[in-house]
Amino acid sequence: MIKVILKKKIAPRIANGHPWIFANEVDKISGEVTPGEIVDVFYADEKFAGRGYINPKSQILVRLLTRKKEDINEQFFYNRLLDAWNYRQKIGYTENCRLIFGEADGMPALIIDKFNDYFVIQTLALGIDQWKPAIVQALEKIFKPRGIYERNDVPVRELEGLPQQKGFLSAPFPTEITIRENGLQFYVDIENGQKTGYFLDQQDNRRAIQHIVKGADVLGAFTYTGTFELHAAHYGAKSVLGLDISANAVAQATRNAQLNGLDKIARFEAVNAFDVLKQWAKDGRQYDVVMLDPPAFTKSRENIQKAITGYKEINLRGMKLVKNGGFLVTSSCTNLVHPELFLQTIDMAAKDARKRIRQVTFQAQASDHPIIWGMENTNYLKFLIVEVTDR
Amino acid sequence: MIKVILKKKIAPRIANGHPWIFANEVDKISGEVTPGEIVDVFYADEKFAGRGYINPKSQILVRLLTRKKEDINEQFFYNRLLDAWNYRQKIGYTENCRLIFGEADGMPALIIDKFNDYFVIQTLALGIDQWKPAIVQALEKIFKPRGIYERNDVPVRELEGLPQQKGFLSAPFPTEITIRENGLQFYVDIENGQKTGYFLDQQDNRRAIQHIVKGADVLGAFTYTGTFELHAAHYGAKSVLGLDISANAVAQATRNAQLNGLDKIARFEAVNAFDVLKQWAKDGRQYDVVMLDPPAFTKSRENIQKAITGYKEINLRGMKLVKNGGFLVTSSCTNLVHPELFLQTIDMAAKDARKRIRQVTFQAQASDHPIIWGMENTNYLKFLIVEVTDR
Repeated sequence: MIKVILKKKIAPRIANGHPWIFANEVDKISGEVTPGEIVDVFYADEKFAGRGYINPKSQILVRLLTRKKEDINEQFFYNRLLDAWNYRQKIGYTENCRLIFGEADGMPALIIDKFNDYFVIQTLALGIDQWKPAIVQALEKIFKPRGIYERNDVPVRELEGLPQQKGFLSAPFPTEITIRENGLQFYVDIENGQKTGYFLDQQDNRRAIQHIVKGADVLGAFTYTGTFELHAAHYGAKSVLGLDISANAVAQATRNAQLNGLDKIARFEAVNAFDVLKQWAKDGRQYDVVMLDPPAFTKSRENIQKAITGYKEINLRGMKLVKNGGFLVTSSCTNLVHPELFLQTIDMAAKDARKRIRQVTFQAQASDHPIIWGMENTNYLKFLIVEVTDR
Repeated sequence: MIKVILKKKIAPRIANGHPWIFANEVDKISGEVTPGEIVDVFYADEKFAGRGYINPKSQILVRLLTRKKEDINEQFFYNRLLDAWNYRQKIGYTENCRLIFGEADGMPALIIDKFNDYFVIQTLALGIDQWKPAIVQALEKIFKPRGIYERNDVPVRELEGLPQQKGFLSAPFPTEITIRENGLQFYVDIENGQKTGYFLDQQDNRRAIQHIVKGADVLGAFTYTGTFELHAAHYGAKSVLGLDISANAVAQATRNAQLNGLDKIARFEAVNAFDVLKQWAKDGRQYDVVMLDPPAFTKSRENIQKAITGYKEINLRGMKLVKNGGFLVTSSCTNLVHPELFLQTIDMAAKDARKRIRQVTFQAQASDHPIIWGMENTNYLKFLIVEVTDR
């Protein structure tokens, strides 16, 4: 097996558990590397650091799969999936869950979402992509799934020299399925929905709006398929209006409203939230609860300031639409904006909007996406509820 | 009315909403101050800053009650209590709740806990103590309570020149009451229990252990009256052992177990947790879940290092008792140890215990204790669940 020897002054990051090894952290490599193959990594003193897969084409040269001298084979992946499943069962996420959350489950660059009996997979690096058959086999063995689908139509794969692709990894099945969540039902478009088809990471956060929406007029922006909005209607909102720039999303949200018999209470409009929120604030419109679940605004570290500006502006506009004593429900889904920075951004927005705010709830993604301290990309979702009052 | 003029270089803290004014922030005071009276506060440019109560004996000279030129009278306190009650109703905390959380409810140094039809009050500064009759009157008017009790037997009152005292503020009533929480019942000793008799701030956190304790052997330390432990038993733990150094607490916890018919599953021992956790780790004892809810370890900024050492040591001992793949449930209740510092402390403990940890849940106190950014004392409770695995 190829040996990768780390430099002497290697970051304590790796010894402390971080699985990524960058090319500039490597002193030497024994032999000719086949991209994607399993290699052994050693510290400069020849102490074993771990075993993982290598790709010279990737910015991340090696991603460690284990710290033990264990065989990486079908059994290895079966065991890892079983561990991950045991963890989800212990913490109470069984029907729908993120079964594998990449690095946080010791499976770098692998995502598996479970939607009742269906599974959606992303293999985002060459080294893990090569083990797709073993992963599918393990899923078949543990779950006897009704269907497995690959959603590898993501640009990040190209950085690994991998093609973008999607398709069945099991016998074909109708790719629009329904899932249940918090007493509601939602269509999930496994083939064409965003990411894996559904954002499981907000499932607990959607439940967190339960009390504040009772009898309320609710406005939701960046509503996508209407999950927060339909929770609001389900929990007793008087009226719910959801906004999304995509006519397709609005159509989906409307179908979800019908599926739950909530289409009298919740309706959806295809508009640009940035524009209409500004206009409606000028018009003096007011809501008891305003909910914002905007996109990341940036995917690169260089553009964090752009993301901050985006978050600040949309939250400022949202707050202006909240009645005195009402609530703003707001999220940020990029790990590039740290929790502290996100709160500071909301604080700035409140000052500019001349509002006072009180923190009701502040939490991360659901626990089926566990957080590993020191692995920044595992701590990405910020979900905040604040009470908004006039200054 | 006495006028308090602030210095020019006053901290933006006050303009930004913080209600405390220290003596060294004041330029001059017009006239002879009667301790506890209501005063008007102005910025150096004579702009009105707010209205509050003054006490030259206190480190905090003035605590602001309002930023408006409104009368501070019975009606004022009635309105504030009603606002606070409306907020709790909106966020779904009605049966038992912290009705007034001091600064976070615009009522510095006032604490009111609601235990179904009973209310417990703390007035921790002279200026608010003088309005006790108005506060009691407002409670009577809004709630028609079965009883109101004063738990002012706290040393901090002496810094204000106030005596420590406790007693009825309504007609006398039996001071051992029962409350319901998450489907359980607990005795609350209003007269002699810690603080106001019961820690409402952990009510959501107790529910957060629901899944991980199923079928588990659970150890709890610093158990007090057994609330976390009885939740564990209620949620399906196989066995629960709760430890507290106080024989009285253990007796109370045992009575609470009996009250819920859980005394076959949950038992309690009066021991020093620091000592026995160390010994049991040496003996090789193992639990599926270990829960720690230790006291603050410090009350002063000078002793933060002592608190950190305490938290680190007890968490290290706790982690060693967790089975591979089990869970540590751990809290810190002092605002002197910030959330980030608390997480760092747990991280250090894990490294020393040679364990790997994954964050399952990290949250603050229940939302009936809202957090105001910039008011450090409102952000005090840290509640963490981590999965613990061997390195």
